Amino acid sequence: MAKQISELKLGILGGGQLGRMLIQQAINYNVTSLVLDPDPDAPCKHICNYFENGSITDFDTVYNFGKKADIITIEIEKVNIEALEQLEKEGKQVFPQSRVIRLIQDKGIQKQFFKENDIPTSPFQLANTKDDMLNSNFDFPYILKLRKDGYDGKGVMRMNSIEDIDNAFDAPCIIEKLVDFEKEIAVIVARNSKGDMKTFPVVEMEFNPEANLVEFLISPSTYAESLQQKAENIAKNIASSMNITGILAVEMFVTKEGEILVNEVAPRPHNSGHQTIEGNYVSQFEQHIRSIYNLPLGDTSSITNAVMINLLGEKGYEGIAKYENLEKILSIDGVFVHLYGKKYTKPFRKMGHITIVDIDREKAIEKARYVQKTLRVIA
Amino acid sequence: MAKQISELKLGILGGGQLGRMLIQQAINYNVTSLVLDPDPDAPCKHICNYFENGSITDFDTVYNFGKKADIITIEIEKVNIEALEQLEKEGKQVFPQSRVIRLIQDKGIQKQFFKENDIPTSPFQLANTKDDMLNSNFDFPYILKLRKDGYDGKGVMRMNSIEDIDNAFDAPCIIEKLVDFEKEIAVIVARNSKGDMKTFPVVEMEFNPEANLVEFLISPSTYAESLQQKAENIAKNIASSMNITGILAVEMFVTKEGEILVNEVAPRPHNSGHQTIEGNYVSQFEQHIRSIYNLPLGDTSSITNAVMINLLGEKGYEGIAKYENLEKILSIDGVFVHLYGKKYTKPFRKMGHITIVDIDREKAIEKARYVQKTLRVIA
Repeated sequence: MAKQISELKLGILGGGQLGRMLIQQAINYNVTSLVLDPDPDAPCKHICNYFENGSITDFDTVYNFGKKADIITIEIEKVNIEALEQLEKEGKQVFPQSRVIRLIQDKGIQKQFFKENDIPTSPFQLANTKDDMLNSNFDFPYILKLRKDGYDGKGVMRMNSIEDIDNAFDAPCIIEKLVDFEKEIAVIVARNSKGDMKTFPVVEMEFNPEANLVEFLISPSTYAESLQQKAENIAKNIASSMNITGILAVEMFVTKEGEILVNEVAPRPHNSGHQTIEGNYVSQFEQHIRSIYNLPLGDTSSITNAVMINLLGEKGYEGIAKYENLEKILSIDGVFVHLYGKKYTKPFRKMGHITIVDIDREKAIEKARYVQKTLRVIA
Repeated sequence: MAKQISELKLGILGGGQLGRMLIQQAINYNVTSLVLDPDPDAPCKHICNYFENGSITDFDTVYNFGKKADIITIEIEKVNIEALEQLEKEGKQVFPQSRVIRLIQDKGIQKQFFKENDIPTSPFQLANTKDDMLNSNFDFPYILKLRKDGYDGKGVMRMNSIEDIDNAFDAPCIIEKLVDFEKEIAVIVARNSKGDMKTFPVVEMEFNPEANLVEFLISPSTYAESLQQKAENIAKNIASSMNITGILAVEMFVTKEGEILVNEVAPRPHNSGHQTIEGNYVSQFEQHIRSIYNLPLGDTSSITNAVMINLLGEKGYEGIAKYENLEKILSIDGVFVHLYGKKYTKPFRKMGHITIVDIDREKAIEKARYVQKTLRVIA
């Protein structure tokens, strides 16, 4: 008989909400979970078998932590790759592979990979210095992105004219054509070591035009079947070109002309898949476990319409988190709360998410709007 | 603002699979969980905030443990009631209340309670000694049940004739009329401190006529709406007569004449509600959390057909558990595995459960039969 799941300890780099939701599912498979996180009170701390407080970017810390596990995964890309490479050399299973994390960590290399593999993406240029920007013949306005360590909207700016270069990032960047998109969509694809692949149905991001922010995530999409099929195929192409083991979230733009362009990818559970916990037969977290343990992939079909909203720390509040009006929103059918176990709130910190399911799509959106204006994280 | 959930620590007496699945859900609400269990390797050990290895039937141990929590609940009825009474006196919230656990712990008192509250149940007599049995004028065959500490079919015997009294339990028992039932059904009802109540849809137990054992649990029932309504009302009547806070599982017989008789009740998450995790919008575990934290109760509707089977340790194997053919069953859509984190298997030990969901009821049953004969826990 092959090795039992319980004999293959899972090491997770990062102990935030993604690790937390991953462990909640991994419990069903008797997975022994080890977590490394620089925050001594990380969300995973009390729900894993072994918690280590330490840096995920330090070679020795990651290497020594990884030695304790059999399979190593990540919940954030910013980890020490060299340690993962060394662990792979010594026979540990690292999923996603260090090679894939290295490729994705750098948005410049990521973009080049898309180009080399005929993955549709917006035109771009690399710019190592401000001089490169000044010498670029890219039309304004364009998007400037830090090649490394951008996160949750940080590390991205819109450049309207040559004057903006004064205040631009002073680090290796990519210059990207500004895409006049109709919607952002995302597809999560899973791939196990046997090469089996499955995609989750396309989800749509609903923008708040006033705040210019993603407000909701709606699953499944109502785009034409042919466009959805195309998006799913693009996600599969990326996963198989990368030869990834694990799940990969693929964020895409749909242009006003109906063209699909890949924006960026993340080789791990992703905010655009949180609604799968209630909205789909198998969740992205269970699917990631199935992928990295080389098990058959689960049924990704949508059960019903699901709208996901992030629960962010309210502006103007910093301190021990309090959840205002939680009771009110729980009195609505189909509202599911996921709090991330973070003791302290601060403005815009991701404190949890809420998924609203309803067989009526418009009703789900309506309930989500109500939840969004009602539930507040204050201090 | 009312107290935050995270400010009210949850103490759980018992750290087995029921506690484990309860904590998996409680994580979503930032519940701080403390667990007391006599097994140093109990299934909850690594997923709670604080684990204490100790007796749940010893006054001092339960009392001192309870002092550390704000809300105390149980995952098994056999706990020290006096300690819970003392904790209640000192202002701790004990849900279900010690009074309710005391009533249910003793099947004699439980039966008398049904009688006093006009809850339909089979005729019975108390029998404190074998002499009482000899002097009883109850017709054979009848069912003899230990008043206390019966569990998973233990503490129940069928008495065919007066000769069987020689081998009967030598402890306080109840004599029950043997019910010639068509099916066993169950309803789980939840009640919070405000008095809000909600029932889960009726589920049916499918018997294996050969082994005379419950083989599957099927949700929802296909009995006529009127019968189901009656069963749900009975469950609600019991919960409100008991004034319980928490969830209550009500097991009932449907006789061949279509009459409903209550068999017994359990004031906690129950094996007859495991399929709610995937099969219903809210699970019994989340509903129990909502009840004891006095939150609005969730939507109990069925999402689709769900069949649940218990995964028992295979006869003839004892030792470190191995799950044979896990991959095979995971390749079937709609199959969800819940392993309980028990290192050692022995014959008939509950090692996990599997839920199979399918929009086609017969297909769900067919898949369940396949899973049942394929997945084996050996050593």
